[in-house]
Amino acid sequence: MGRTPPHPDVSQVELQQVLEALVDPVRRSIVTQLDAAGRDLACGTFDMAVSKSTATHHFKVLREAGLIRQYYVGTSRMNALRRAEMDEAFPGLLDALIVRQAARL
Amino acid sequence: MGRTPPHPDVSQVELQQVLEALVDPVRRSIVTQLDAAGRDLACGTFDMAVSKSTATHHFKVLREAGLIRQYYVGTSRMNALRRAEMDEAFPGLLDALIVRQAARL
Repeated sequence: MGRTPPHPDVSQVELQQVLEALVDPVRRSIVTQLDAAGRDLACGTFDMAVSKSTATHHFKVLREAGLIRQYYVGTSRMNALRRAEMDEAFPGLLDALIVRQAARL
Repeated sequence: MGRTPPHPDVSQVELQQVLEALVDPVRRSIVTQLDAAGRDLACGTFDMAVSKSTATHHFKVLREAGLIRQYYVGTSRMNALRRAEMDEAFPGLLDALIVRQAARL
């Protein structure tokens, strides 16, 4: 309960912060993997060639930009893509980035 | 003639380079101003609170990412938004960024 980290209201997040989160290819890959999975994923299940502490940083940046919601299930930190909220606040942005990611990294 | 700087084939530009160009708010503003004008604009006509050399750098980054085409008319360096080419290579991206820029910087 107390371990759930803070999450912003997506409607209060600036485009600048979202772009700074998504300009990083590892973070874009996390978002793409979540979208492709169509379900919440534990931090340890992502395909990422970075250290655990670097991965934790990337998840934090995404969380603070409103892109993902993090919560615990037992000892696993789970990640949910806040797709509907992002699509409402920034129409077309994730579509444009995720489609391209799939077609051309 | 020989003064026309090199321009990339937009279909060869990576999303990563386009995002690195557009993550900068000044560069996003240049793109937004070009889109709003609906015509090519000389470098000196943009509303930008940066030095001339910084502005020149920003235009260069946009040009190298395939976002704008630069050419001379007399001593004026003109800038054209490569909107159709970008829309074909990165569908929805400029729409997502320009719409948001207008609604919420």
